[in-house]
Amino acid sequence: MTRADGRANDELRPTKITCGVQTFSEGSVLIETGLTRVLCAVSIEDKVPRFLRGSGQGWITAEYAMLPRATLTRSPRERTPRGRTQEIQRLIGRSLRAAIDLERLGERTFTVDCDVLQADAGTRTAAITGGYVALYQAIAALVDERRLPDMPIRAAVAATSVGIVDGERLLDLCYGEDAGAQADFNVVMTADGEFVEVQGTAEGMPYSRRALDDVLSLAEQGIGQLIDIQRDAIARIAPA
Amino acid sequence: MTRADGRANDELRPTKITCGVQTFSEGSVLIETGLTRVLCAVSIEDKVPRFLRGSGQGWITAEYAMLPRATLTRSPRERTPRGRTQEIQRLIGRSLRAAIDLERLGERTFTVDCDVLQADAGTRTAAITGGYVALYQAIAALVDERRLPDMPIRAAVAATSVGIVDGERLLDLCYGEDAGAQADFNVVMTADGEFVEVQGTAEGMPYSRRALDDVLSLAEQGIGQLIDIQRDAIARIAPA
Amino acid sequence: MTRADGRANDELRPTKITCGVQTFSEGSVLIETGLTRVLCAVSIEDKVPRFLRGSGQGWITAEYAMLPRATLTRSPRERTPRGRTQEIQRLIGRSLRAAIDLERLGERTFTVDCDVLQADAGTRTAAITGGYVALYQAIAALVDERRLPDMPIRAAVAATSVGIVDGERLLDLCYGEDAGAQADFNVVMTADGEFVEVQGTAEGMPYSRRALDDVLSLAEQGIGQLIDIQRDAIARIAPA
Amino acid sequence: MTRADGRANDELRPTKITCGVQTFSEGSVLIETGLTRVLCAVSIEDKVPRFLRGSGQGWITAEYAMLPRATLTRSPRERTPRGRTQEIQRLIGRSLRAAIDLERLGERTFTVDCDVLQADAGTRTAAITGGYVALYQAIAALVDERRLPDMPIRAAVAATSVGIVDGERLLDLCYGEDAGAQADFNVVMTADGEFVEVQGTAEGMPYSRRALDDVLSLAEQGIGQLIDIQRDAIARIAPA
Amino acid sequence: MTRADGRANDELRPTKITCGVQTFSEGSVLIETGLTRVLCAVSIEDKVPRFLRGSGQGWITAEYAMLPRATLTRSPRERTPRGRTQEIQRLIGRSLRAAIDLERLGERTFTVDCDVLQADAGTRTAAITGGYVALYQAIAALVDERRLPDMPIRAAVAATSVGIVDGERLLDLCYGEDAGAQADFNVVMTADGEFVEVQGTAEGMPYSRRALDDVLSLAEQGIGQLIDIQRDAIARIAPA
Amino acid sequence: MTRADGRANDELRPTKITCGVQTFSEGSVLIETGLTRVLCAVSIEDKVPRFLRGSGQGWITAEYAMLPRATLTRSPRERTPRGRTQEIQRLIGRSLRAAIDLERLGERTFTVDCDVLQADAGTRTAAITGGYVALYQAIAALVDERRLPDMPIRAAVAATSVGIVDGERLLDLCYGEDAGAQADFNVVMTADGEFVEVQGTAEGMPYSRRALDDVLSLAEQGIGQLIDIQRDAIARIAPA
Repeated sequence: MTRADGRANDELRPTKITCGVQTFSEGSVLIETGLTRVLCAVSIEDKVPRFLRGSGQGWITAEYAMLPRATLTRSPRERTPRGRTQEIQRLIGRSLRAAIDLERLGERTFTVDCDVLQADAGTRTAAITGGYVALYQAIAALVDERRLPDMPIRAAVAATSVGIVDGERLLDLCYGEDAGAQADFNVVMTADGEFVEVQGTAEGMPYSRRALDDVLSLAEQGIGQLIDIQRDAIARIAPA
Repeated sequence: MTRADGRANDELRPTKITCGVQTFSEGSVLIETGLTRVLCAVSIEDKVPRFLRGSGQGWITAEYAMLPRATLTRSPRERTPRGRTQEIQRLIGRSLRAAIDLERLGERTFTVDCDVLQADAGTRTAAITGGYVALYQAIAALVDERRLPDMPIRAAVAATSVGIVDGERLLDLCYGEDAGAQADFNVVMTADGEFVEVQGTAEGMPYSRRALDDVLSLAEQGIGQLIDIQRDAIARIAPA
Repeated sequence: MTRADGRANDELRPTKITCGVQTFSEGSVLIETGLTRVLCAVSIEDKVPRFLRGSGQGWITAEYAMLPRATLTRSPRERTPRGRTQEIQRLIGRSLRAAIDLERLGERTFTVDCDVLQADAGTRTAAITGGYVALYQAIAALVDERRLPDMPIRAAVAATSVGIVDGERLLDLCYGEDAGAQADFNVVMTADGEFVEVQGTAEGMPYSRRALDDVLSLAEQGIGQLIDIQRDAIARIAPA
Repeated sequence: MTRADGRANDELRPTKITCGVQTFSEGSVLIETGLTRVLCAVSIEDKVPRFLRGSGQGWITAEYAMLPRATLTRSPRERTPRGRTQEIQRLIGRSLRAAIDLERLGERTFTVDCDVLQADAGTRTAAITGGYVALYQAIAALVDERRLPDMPIRAAVAATSVGIVDGERLLDLCYGEDAGAQADFNVVMTADGEFVEVQGTAEGMPYSRRALDDVLSLAEQGIGQLIDIQRDAIARIAPA
Repeated sequence: MTRADGRANDELRPTKITCGVQTFSEGSVLIETGLTRVLCAVSIEDKVPRFLRGSGQGWITAEYAMLPRATLTRSPRERTPRGRTQEIQRLIGRSLRAAIDLERLGERTFTVDCDVLQADAGTRTAAITGGYVALYQAIAALVDERRLPDMPIRAAVAATSVGIVDGERLLDLCYGEDAGAQADFNVVMTADGEFVEVQGTAEGMPYSRRALDDVLSLAEQGIGQLIDIQRDAIARIAPA
Repeated sequence: MTRADGRANDELRPTKITCGVQTFSEGSVLIETGLTRVLCAVSIEDKVPRFLRGSGQGWITAEYAMLPRATLTRSPRERTPRGRTQEIQRLIGRSLRAAIDLERLGERTFTVDCDVLQADAGTRTAAITGGYVALYQAIAALVDERRLPDMPIRAAVAATSVGIVDGERLLDLCYGEDAGAQADFNVVMTADGEFVEVQGTAEGMPYSRRALDDVLSLAEQGIGQLIDIQRDAIARIAPA
């Protein structure tokens, strides 16, 4: 089987992370993965949710939305975020919190707005991969301004999707592949090679333990490459 | 380590499935797992969502809610289901659809209402395990009434949680264990030993590939036992 | 005329009150009246609504909901409580407040959640009759724990429905009778034989002063019996 | 005891019904009862709610709202009608439907908008009393236009409040009396002296059967006078 | 061209302002312009929006609503004010704030409720013209009660509509004219002849600079007359 | 006075229109005006609102939203569009409809989504100016595909803001100027030099007829330049 865009089964789409694309935001990234484009913008507030007040600890939360015409046909704006949207927001937030030592952030909330300008599948994993870099930029600026003593990073996190399509195991599904997958997986890992989240859903047909093992290995490899792309983007951030 | 209730790490809580507990519902089950109690009630309508009209195919959907005082302290009734609730509803629905051959259901929608009367963790997996039996009862009645030619079952599905607590791998977490887990997993499998869903979240600390392998094995074992308990409950359903 | 279930016109349905059915709730009751089943659960909070703050006085409020498949056919979950639901909640709350000396409750709010597991008419009156017992249990526990000096009860309250069906005056209507009634009445009384609430609605045909007098007498008799059933249930509550 | 405004205990407030106050409405009435002022406007649509389609039968429904500054202090506009508002709307609708033979209305819906311009208690009973006249005007116009063969009236309906204040039985409470009542009652009756609705609520202290009998007699007398005032207003409606 | 109601192109409809029509409100006006009738009622609260707290400055805000049957056919009550309604509310509020020196009002909020009893176009401009007088009455009462040292009025404001209909420039459009206008304008001016707001919308066909100049002159003339009518109404306000 | 960014009073900010920036949309534009950046994307549906069905006529509507971090500080996502947002959406829609001969569009709806990526004032006028070009691209593609016989354009429309700041008349206000303006105006004009919309609001102080004349002349000049920039962008659209 050849993939629609000629990629090998274990090949990521071309992925580009551009940092500092917004003028007003504390940290901002445009991540492009194939046709998928997500704008991640970080905002910092000097307060935390009620359950953390007085703890000295910080918080990271994420919002996720699509422009109405990010997709092939227009989707109405969501007034109340649908279940799928909330599920994605919760996933992004949990994943980014895994990257950071919240106790060393101070009582601040970092809101990472992930707005999908264009969607060709993999938007939630792109949001995690790009969101980490935007968050890094925002935190690094606090360190530069000496409002934080040092970088409270535990380990970079990045994410990708893998799937089983017509029996093949594929890395980084595009929309056509995702829509026809027997099972698809979102995997979030750290730069240390540990798992933050594994979500594997049989859309059409249950999958064997063996197939699960295979796709997890594919994801490990792809995420390794994304971690490198993040590292390069971070290296290009101009010192404050 | 001994677990709070004296169970071994690989031991399920006492689990009981009582079928036919509601007078009016086409299929109903009370599933009790330790202190967790979920009432599953199936309703059948002779119509399907718009995207299936004219397809000859059926649909299965689930709703999930807690009584306000199912929990240790009262929670307000949810007006608009929160993200977590919607995530759970989608999981239950997907899992139950994996058990049934929708093409052989006719253009009918089966709504499985899962109402948590009492909650001590594991409510979503109990809802899947109990919901399957309630669904079986409702479908079997259609077959008895000759409104369906035969049982359109692909394979029973059941679910459990597993987790990593203080480095130990534990089967079927109760509330105290769940709240303190480093990582927790909901696993849905078929009677054929295949996976329908794996959701593994590092709440506190990322987990290694090795730990993931271990908990998946624990889940396989526990779900095997739940499949047996389902089989017994189904055997006790009185013929229509 | 014989009633569908063979009862005499002035006969209650078999009514059973089981106390302490929920593990976590301060007071809980399952009341069964014929096929009608209502779970009443009391939660206590150490705060009162704004208009009572600083008054030293307590408050009692009720919520009422049906499981979607409590009824013959499924009803969607109510997101915003409909007018009928709010009317019922207000009636239950008012009735229970009439039973208790709020000034001797301390600044506490008692929320009585009345969840209808199964509905065959008379759910609101069952909720009042059962709710009183659940409330008694919750308050008695406070007295046992010496958080209250003595029981601040004014008089037990119980409720039933009466109706005019095909010209007959009937006590405790079931669904079939209720649906066909010319007029129906919900009556709430105290153990002292006084009225807390009379609501009499001509659904089909106005009723005479004479008919009103007759059904009020029927209600007085039925409520007397319910007060006895409450007293027995309370006697069975295990001392704390 | 003398009442604040010098009335006898069994005396209505001065009540005036002006018909035809709105230019566009099919039937309209301004009813003034003391300081209470309610504008009732009828709108006719040639369709009925779903449950009546094809039945040949008509429907009458009511809406009720207060201007924000109808009251002593301003109340915010209700976005979603509160429980109290819905309760009132349902009462007005039921009461007006009791006056009319719906089967002789044709498949039409009459919406009676009751907007309280000024409120000094008794707004819901004024809305019923005035709403009946506005409805009469709208129906009479249909008869004049030969769109209905004859007046489908069963019996005029009118309503008033009665209450127990400091042990006294009072007719037609104003705000000060209503706020301090031990129990208050809304009573709706027909011109034939039968009851459409009795709602009696002990706000502070339960009431005896004897007290109930007394206030019902007061209501019968007051409603008789209101029926006369309605009759005069109808007599003044200009022929179409 | 003759206008439907026989007016000259530069002629206002008969306009009448009656002050003090509500018993409880601090200031109230019924303004009638042709068939259009708007009830304006002012409420004063001793607090201001958050952004003004501690500033010593007051605030004026407006709400606008129509009775459902103000119009030729019934419109449902708006639960959430629609865009058009909010636009109107914001316009009324801005216009009235332009009339008053907010810094001399004290930390008070004046809410001007503009409820349209009957609508034949020009309701928003009638609300401004009438609202100013109601506000004047409310403020004058504060001065009478010596709660304000003097009248903090900058200049009276009044408003009217003008339009281009079939090429003619018309003052004070009624509904039939408004519906057929090529362009319509709402103009708000002060008694000093300055502009507070100009809103000119080409509904059908863009308009030239020349046409714009013409209708602005018409508006200037009409608003001059309205200012006189306001002055007369204010002169009739009884001293407190 | 020199303006903060060194512009002359009658000088537009650097303005750039890039067409075709979205892959899936029928017409798309990124318009940049100083730091303001708006993405306009057109979607075509083969249906029209109810009031146009069967008319053979088309419709154009607009939505407007800001990314949460388009602004200096983060604003929460709007669930229900606020009054201001709806006002802007209605303005954009009306303005774009003025440009097109709807009767020659066929029964199609064009939705123009205007998403503000970055905001430094003038976002609604940028949305109109850019939206026209995106709409042109979408319509031109229909002509290229011979789904429309010819371009149903009446006249290009463009828009700008003007204001009175410290007595000076300024063209194309940036955020700092807008916030401090005594009065500000949004003006929409056609390429033929006629007015589609004039909205002039005295935020702080009423303005004279003379000042109004001055700013209208400024707007005429600026819009002339924007019409040229639109023309250049359209010339660069690649033929389909």
